[in-house]
Amino acid sequence: MEESDLLRITILGAGVMGAAITKPLIDNGHEISLWGTEYDIPLLESMARNGIHPKLGIRISRNVKIFPPDKLEEAVRDSKIVLIAVSSQGTKNVSRRMVPFLKKGMVVVTVAKGLEKDSDGKIHTMAEVIENVIPENMREEIYVAAMGGPQVASEVAQGVHTAVVCASQKIHAAKLCKEALTTPAYIVETTRDLIGVELCAALKNVYAIGVSFCDGLKDKKGLQTIDNTKATLFTYAANEMAKIVKAKRGKVKTVLGLAGVGDLDVTCRKAAGRNRLFGRLLGQGLNTEEALERTRKSEGLVEGFETAQKGYELAKELELENKIRIDEDAPFLRQIYSVLFERKNADEAIVDLFRSRRI
Amino acid sequence: MEESDLLRITILGAGVMGAAITKPLIDNGHEISLWGTEYDIPLLESMARNGIHPKLGIRISRNVKIFPPDKLEEAVRDSKIVLIAVSSQGTKNVSRRMVPFLKKGMVVVTVAKGLEKDSDGKIHTMAEVIENVIPENMREEIYVAAMGGPQVASEVAQGVHTAVVCASQKIHAAKLCKEALTTPAYIVETTRDLIGVELCAALKNVYAIGVSFCDGLKDKKGLQTIDNTKATLFTYAANEMAKIVKAKRGKVKTVLGLAGVGDLDVTCRKAAGRNRLFGRLLGQGLNTEEALERTRKSEGLVEGFETAQKGYELAKELELENKIRIDEDAPFLRQIYSVLFERKNADEAIVDLFRSRRI
Repeated sequence: MEESDLLRITILGAGVMGAAITKPLIDNGHEISLWGTEYDIPLLESMARNGIHPKLGIRISRNVKIFPPDKLEEAVRDSKIVLIAVSSQGTKNVSRRMVPFLKKGMVVVTVAKGLEKDSDGKIHTMAEVIENVIPENMREEIYVAAMGGPQVASEVAQGVHTAVVCASQKIHAAKLCKEALTTPAYIVETTRDLIGVELCAALKNVYAIGVSFCDGLKDKKGLQTIDNTKATLFTYAANEMAKIVKAKRGKVKTVLGLAGVGDLDVTCRKAAGRNRLFGRLLGQGLNTEEALERTRKSEGLVEGFETAQKGYELAKELELENKIRIDEDAPFLRQIYSVLFERKNADEAIVDLFRSRRI
Repeated sequence: MEESDLLRITILGAGVMGAAITKPLIDNGHEISLWGTEYDIPLLESMARNGIHPKLGIRISRNVKIFPPDKLEEAVRDSKIVLIAVSSQGTKNVSRRMVPFLKKGMVVVTVAKGLEKDSDGKIHTMAEVIENVIPENMREEIYVAAMGGPQVASEVAQGVHTAVVCASQKIHAAKLCKEALTTPAYIVETTRDLIGVELCAALKNVYAIGVSFCDGLKDKKGLQTIDNTKATLFTYAANEMAKIVKAKRGKVKTVLGLAGVGDLDVTCRKAAGRNRLFGRLLGQGLNTEEALERTRKSEGLVEGFETAQKGYELAKELELENKIRIDEDAPFLRQIYSVLFERKNADEAIVDLFRSRRI
């Protein structure tokens, strides 16, 4: 990368993802600011002490400048790219705090994977949440983008080969992120299909819970393997994501890409993943409260659970608009919803799903 | 199922897949004949002795009629559906032997997953191989179909929930198979996209080898996980399959379905799979001969290796016809070919693949 292409880039959120993504950026020689929220204070203190991010267990480059919660303005000032790496639940709040410091021409990228129910009662993606807090007179000149794809943070931090996709309706914004982030071990594709990437990113967490019911059923039934069922549910998940993405005018190609099947694959595979553990416990026969408690104890927040209700509401919105029929186009999502919120047994949900697909 | 819908169905090949698929058919009450080739004699003898299929380790229903190699005519006579469950290498030979006993109106379904280079020097699918040995005056009235999708034989035999797809240009033939085979635990979808299903079924074995390079790289480099790379390669595989399928006038939808991402998923996941073990050994740094010897010793034939050369030749045919460009549309296939046949190191192949995707 040419010296002249070096940028000032700010990451908001010092959790595992925020810290991990400093790796390709520092490798490319950019000037990186990492700002932590109030929740991140113990992490910031640890990094200040010995350079190691305690949740990642990995040393963060000394070239990363760390900013505490009350230094948001300094962290954001003069940045070309602001990368929001807080949870989807925290995205609206952090966006609101950031907005006063934005300047025209900045790119704001979210890596959060979730959905938000806004005051209008409608379901919004993370990019929509960010856009909605930007004052109208600046919206044309702040470029919002979102990242998707399979990126386990600890692997990104270690330089394990990873490929992701950056989406923005303003394609030059996505291309700027690509240039800033791409290294030999970290590839960034670009697309204009922002809605497709964001819906995939959010929904794959929900579907990964459903696919992981199989792991629990395997335990419960003492089966040696349950790969056929898992692969079938993986396929159904991809198909339903395609239906929902299409109904929101996104592209099926995105579902067949890194943000879709790629991220779904990694989420269903990740042995230590929270969505997977949560789904597995439900498959074993635990109810939602028990499974949540057990998962949160060992792993923290279950992204897919937080998104499931909103994902289902989004499907219902689309059904009301006659764009999908849940029974035909998203029966797996319906069954996951029943297990999570209507005390349906996961075993029975799988049986019913297969029955519904016989016709 | 109504008594009147019960059929006489013959399975050719008494290996694990042939034996496993008797399960849904017997559950539906059909009259099943299982014919074994000369290679299957030890299996037939074991089943005759104690009812157990030694490779599956599972008891086959007593209602299955077993036929030895010299009783092919009796086995096929009066059958409505003949299901060919021998290896892709054996399909042409068994088809030739079967042809004299076919009658008009029969459906011939292949479950073999591979490609064949025919005397015309061109690459053919299994259904094309079968069609080519049927006398021309009968071709219009023998209906050829192919099955795809994630079906680990031992799981099918145990009644683990499985969904597959049956494809035929004569859709009524696919529907007949669906009716015959579908049970609450074994779902058969249908499609007219025969070429799409067959290309996916064959190519996924090749790509699963490439995805599994990661398992070996993980061993070699002492990484805890390599999920990002694996998911990226999984996605590239799905994308390249879509390019090749489209170039042969198949449907991208098929790639996003059970025969495509579904079967690819199960093949990359299956802990005991030969394609995966072979890919892993290559990833560890063994050369092709060493990896083949080790895999064959523990597991037998490596389907994906047998198909890799032909899959690459097919891509070259398509390039000559200006339908794809291998560098752009199938660079992962190219790298897999280099590892298998040009002594390229798997590690280097992944590095080069990522480099080629940076642009």
